[in-house]
Amino acid sequence: MTAQRLKIGCAGLGRMGKRHALNFLERTPRAELVAASSPDPVELEWAKIHLEPFGVRLYQNYDDMLKHEGLVAVVIASATAVHAEQAIKAIEADKHVLCEKPISTSVEVSQSVVNAATLKPNLKVMCGFSRRFDKSYRAAHKKMQSGAIGTPSVLRSQTCDKLDPTGFFVAYAQYSGGIFVDCSIHDIDLTFWFFGNCKVKSVSAAGITAVEPGLRQHNDRDNAVGLVEFYDGRIAYFYASRMMAAGQEDVTEIIGTKGKLAVNARPAMNLVQVFGGSGVSRELPGDYYDRFEEAFVTEAREFTGACLDGGELPVVLGDAVRAVRIGAALQEALVTERKIFFDEEGERVEVARL
Amino acid sequence: MTAQRLKIGCAGLGRMGKRHALNFLERTPRAELVAASSPDPVELEWAKIHLEPFGVRLYQNYDDMLKHEGLVAVVIASATAVHAEQAIKAIEADKHVLCEKPISTSVEVSQSVVNAATLKPNLKVMCGFSRRFDKSYRAAHKKMQSGAIGTPSVLRSQTCDKLDPTGFFVAYAQYSGGIFVDCSIHDIDLTFWFFGNCKVKSVSAAGITAVEPGLRQHNDRDNAVGLVEFYDGRIAYFYASRMMAAGQEDVTEIIGTKGKLAVNARPAMNLVQVFGGSGVSRELPGDYYDRFEEAFVTEAREFTGACLDGGELPVVLGDAVRAVRIGAALQEALVTERKIFFDEEGERVEVARL
Amino acid sequence: MTAQRLKIGCAGLGRMGKRHALNFLERTPRAELVAASSPDPVELEWAKIHLEPFGVRLYQNYDDMLKHEGLVAVVIASATAVHAEQAIKAIEADKHVLCEKPISTSVEVSQSVVNAATLKPNLKVMCGFSRRFDKSYRAAHKKMQSGAIGTPSVLRSQTCDKLDPTGFFVAYAQYSGGIFVDCSIHDIDLTFWFFGNCKVKSVSAAGITAVEPGLRQHNDRDNAVGLVEFYDGRIAYFYASRMMAAGQEDVTEIIGTKGKLAVNARPAMNLVQVFGGSGVSRELPGDYYDRFEEAFVTEAREFTGACLDGGELPVVLGDAVRAVRIGAALQEALVTERKIFFDEEGERVEVARL
Amino acid sequence: MTAQRLKIGCAGLGRMGKRHALNFLERTPRAELVAASSPDPVELEWAKIHLEPFGVRLYQNYDDMLKHEGLVAVVIASATAVHAEQAIKAIEADKHVLCEKPISTSVEVSQSVVNAATLKPNLKVMCGFSRRFDKSYRAAHKKMQSGAIGTPSVLRSQTCDKLDPTGFFVAYAQYSGGIFVDCSIHDIDLTFWFFGNCKVKSVSAAGITAVEPGLRQHNDRDNAVGLVEFYDGRIAYFYASRMMAAGQEDVTEIIGTKGKLAVNARPAMNLVQVFGGSGVSRELPGDYYDRFEEAFVTEAREFTGACLDGGELPVVLGDAVRAVRIGAALQEALVTERKIFFDEEGERVEVARL
Repeated sequence: MTAQRLKIGCAGLGRMGKRHALNFLERTPRAELVAASSPDPVELEWAKIHLEPFGVRLYQNYDDMLKHEGLVAVVIASATAVHAEQAIKAIEADKHVLCEKPISTSVEVSQSVVNAATLKPNLKVMCGFSRRFDKSYRAAHKKMQSGAIGTPSVLRSQTCDKLDPTGFFVAYAQYSGGIFVDCSIHDIDLTFWFFGNCKVKSVSAAGITAVEPGLRQHNDRDNAVGLVEFYDGRIAYFYASRMMAAGQEDVTEIIGTKGKLAVNARPAMNLVQVFGGSGVSRELPGDYYDRFEEAFVTEAREFTGACLDGGELPVVLGDAVRAVRIGAALQEALVTERKIFFDEEGERVEVARL
Repeated sequence: MTAQRLKIGCAGLGRMGKRHALNFLERTPRAELVAASSPDPVELEWAKIHLEPFGVRLYQNYDDMLKHEGLVAVVIASATAVHAEQAIKAIEADKHVLCEKPISTSVEVSQSVVNAATLKPNLKVMCGFSRRFDKSYRAAHKKMQSGAIGTPSVLRSQTCDKLDPTGFFVAYAQYSGGIFVDCSIHDIDLTFWFFGNCKVKSVSAAGITAVEPGLRQHNDRDNAVGLVEFYDGRIAYFYASRMMAAGQEDVTEIIGTKGKLAVNARPAMNLVQVFGGSGVSRELPGDYYDRFEEAFVTEAREFTGACLDGGELPVVLGDAVRAVRIGAALQEALVTERKIFFDEEGERVEVARL
Repeated sequence: MTAQRLKIGCAGLGRMGKRHALNFLERTPRAELVAASSPDPVELEWAKIHLEPFGVRLYQNYDDMLKHEGLVAVVIASATAVHAEQAIKAIEADKHVLCEKPISTSVEVSQSVVNAATLKPNLKVMCGFSRRFDKSYRAAHKKMQSGAIGTPSVLRSQTCDKLDPTGFFVAYAQYSGGIFVDCSIHDIDLTFWFFGNCKVKSVSAAGITAVEPGLRQHNDRDNAVGLVEFYDGRIAYFYASRMMAAGQEDVTEIIGTKGKLAVNARPAMNLVQVFGGSGVSRELPGDYYDRFEEAFVTEAREFTGACLDGGELPVVLGDAVRAVRIGAALQEALVTERKIFFDEEGERVEVARL
Repeated sequence: MTAQRLKIGCAGLGRMGKRHALNFLERTPRAELVAASSPDPVELEWAKIHLEPFGVRLYQNYDDMLKHEGLVAVVIASATAVHAEQAIKAIEADKHVLCEKPISTSVEVSQSVVNAATLKPNLKVMCGFSRRFDKSYRAAHKKMQSGAIGTPSVLRSQTCDKLDPTGFFVAYAQYSGGIFVDCSIHDIDLTFWFFGNCKVKSVSAAGITAVEPGLRQHNDRDNAVGLVEFYDGRIAYFYASRMMAAGQEDVTEIIGTKGKLAVNARPAMNLVQVFGGSGVSRELPGDYYDRFEEAFVTEAREFTGACLDGGELPVVLGDAVRAVRIGAALQEALVTERKIFFDEEGERVEVARL
């Protein structure tokens, strides 16, 4: 007798697709990567070397992969623009779905996936907010729940990428939904996770182009600060940047009435410190995957477990829509230079506040 | 022959007054504390023990002290409400003045002191922004000037006090000008220092009362976040709190196009770490004086030096007005829930931005 | 076509055996755990739940497991007392061997395994010094090789366990070879790795029983410091303890003529810091597996790769004998209260040095 | 009425002499530096500028200074070779004495000062072990006394200087007493302070010349490790170095049965961290005075207070002899390559231990 394993296919074999494929192939014991798809010949070439020899069937066409004999689940790691469409097709084909964030940069499109999933309550459909699977964020959340900091009241969180000198992110900006949707979406999701399901009262934002003025043509910025007020008397503020010199700096502080939790206030690549002529130095993670690699593995394992065992998903699908909604509002506040208000039902309040 | 020393008097002998008096008495070799004044009998009682035996003449009345034979300078550490009046009187009496921050919580009153000082260009009149005298802030400023971080573009700074369980700060709030004027004024001053004389385009703010709802009757909050845009494409954001559990946490980050400077990202009371049953711990400074004591001594010494030698003051008086102006605007943005705009001449722009 | 995988069996299913078995089962993609053996019914019960369902054949008897059809390699994680015997049997049965440290607490017995391996040069036989597989130690080693610290001259290293309040380690002491052989063996191996193959000139040691006087009956201590001189003008010093209150503290410093590398000078369980009423605190790893889990996975993967691809093993087998030799000498120096000298051929010099 | 101040003279105006003179002149309110002496014309030239204008009388000759009208105390900061002689003369002249460490590199000569002081019990005679006045060491000592770490059992301490590329310390080695007497003396004194008055059972040591082989002609080394056993079942181990690349690294750990105190495990020049292209870096203190400047000021103040008020000195004079005794024994162990034993009365045990 052999234990049952989750037969899964991977859609998209770009940077994140490769990682998801290998995580399901090599680091998720209860899953079996049986298929992978990509329209890109270069990506398929890679897959012929790294996936095919281990029994993974390759497809040029996502729809064909969905028909793979015995396929039970898909992980969607293709371009953001097709996330939602592929997710809906998979749901309609009765597959469990793990979808890379964001489902879509559009609130409406994101919601359409939630709607599709609602019709198939037996399916596990999850959007991958990797930080929820990180052991440090989890330890912090657990400490908060144990009462260690009293009532969490203020949250500061930043997602700051190392500067990519190729400026790739300028072209990328036309698809990304903007820095608040692309980067701060994690911080927004964390806020709801730590604060519970509180209601947004207003958002304000400001941003600059310190290194890439070209971002403005896509209504984007390379550094931005956002400020969110909640109706229950809490505030969160976010900083996103694509300009860090030293490496990835994703830091979160949850400040409560009796204490504070800091996650990654001292970023580091590893446990080495070099004492040299100019002092003591340490290296930082080069990108988010250096920082969160283990979280992605945990995500794959827990998604697999939920599919096989039928338990609760660790992240509710609707959370993804909620985060995009606030991210998009912050981006709008940034571009229009206006403070945006919501009523307690979440509807925009358009009255002038002079 | 004996070197000349600056004969100085101290106005006010409350918490900060005692410290200034002792700093000039004991830790400022080129100064000689010759007089001190306070209308408060308890404070004078203290002075009889700690100042009088060392040759300091005590006065109940500030005006009398100003007439002390040979007095050349005063340090004003009385209640904020009388700072400006006492400063102007001293200027008119031809004394150098070191005035505790803020000169006033009112922009107009602050400006009146600047105006008085302008008429006596030979006098040294300074508002004590203690952080400018802190060796870590100075080291950071020097590194910035050397080009270590490229162009400084984003500044994050926080002034966070340990929770005072007596709630003293609620009563104090009616005089303090609000949390942005009382606490963030340091962060605002640091921003101008690090960014140069840039022009404010807008301010936004949000605040809560997590521990002291009573603050709302004074239009104040116990936690607040402020966001400031500048016309030259920079942003600064501030966090002020009166609720820290662990101690004083004043942290500043200056983020540039090629690097970042962090000041006090790892706050600590001293160099001790305790490895015990629940992990590793260290203590934090209990208040701002624990953190900045040496900076106050340096301030006293450098003010003394400028008075005796006639050199440049390390902090220009007008900076104090500038910082109060932005602090008051942030406080207004907090209370009115509006974003406030300025034109490039610093005038308010009152047009609705719908 | 499916890629070839290394068919491996696991000897021993105690604490480390379970971990090795699961690492080869779940986290070593190129290996296939096909068999496991243990004489212990409780351990086999565990294996029926955690290994058998995934196709692992269980054996009560090690010799039987060695005859498992198609078995190519074994990982030996049984009691130290049978490591050597099992390793030699495996070598004689033409299996590759990954043996937990130490091969034996006896230098002679350890050497006998090396001798057996020498007769089968086609086999991969490795003793698992887990720290050599840790990414931080590797990053440090690479930096050293790049010249970052000049000539490495002094090495400080400690292996300090959290206090086990059950006192299990007292009974264990009669088999462990003593604290220098059981704990410091890692530090000794690291020294040879960082210093290269230098020759020991003398060893000195001192130890105490601060918490478990019962250790003395087994010639052991709960805290010990050792000092090793090398003929090429370098020194290493070690601290081992079983008494840490806060958690595992394995720290290494490599001090060179132009710099220093510190590994784990700031131990931490994760990236969380708690700011509470008594200051800032963080947790430490509870034991060596919390600290080195990923290194054990890397060890399994690299051993597997070397067996399949025929490349060099990352740790040479003879290194294990060398480390035991110095560990045993330090233990002797501790017990006899004598400094022990070696000549340049590694022979003991028994002349009194009065 | 003016409060009484301690009229003190400073013997020696070299590097430490200048600092002591200025500390008593400017930063010790209850003291009045009235005199200073140096046989060195360059040092006197400095004093004419920095001391004389403030009323300090200068002397070429120490004996003449001792006769200065009204002189009550002396601080001896001359060359180590004359410390003892000058201290004895001062005692005979009925002056309080603060003597820089060490009193002498010879145990016998050090003892002669203690003997002289014993005859004048009314005088305050202290050897300046600066670390006892450091606020972090004091906080650690207080925590230990409160029981925070159970029974202190193992102490690790290091005094490591930044490499002086001029090699000055080679010439200095002929007078310094060797690296254990010159550097580790602080660590030895701290050990007795933290462990109480425990009796030494044995000392072992090893050292190398990694950067300055010329030290061997003076029986000295540039890096050395020492190991001390106490009769009550404790151990201490020390590391001293003159080769640090990054700066001064004086670190102490006191390890108890229930916890550990670490002092300066994270050395830093100030609170600034620079995030740049190669990671995060901070600077270290350049030398011991950068690290301990405030401790020297506290030392001056507390010595002054004890002289004026007649209270207990914070450091007992005999402690200085005790520390030199162990430092000299470690240096002998280093040079002779022998382990050295003491009986419980502190007498050397010369029997061979084969």
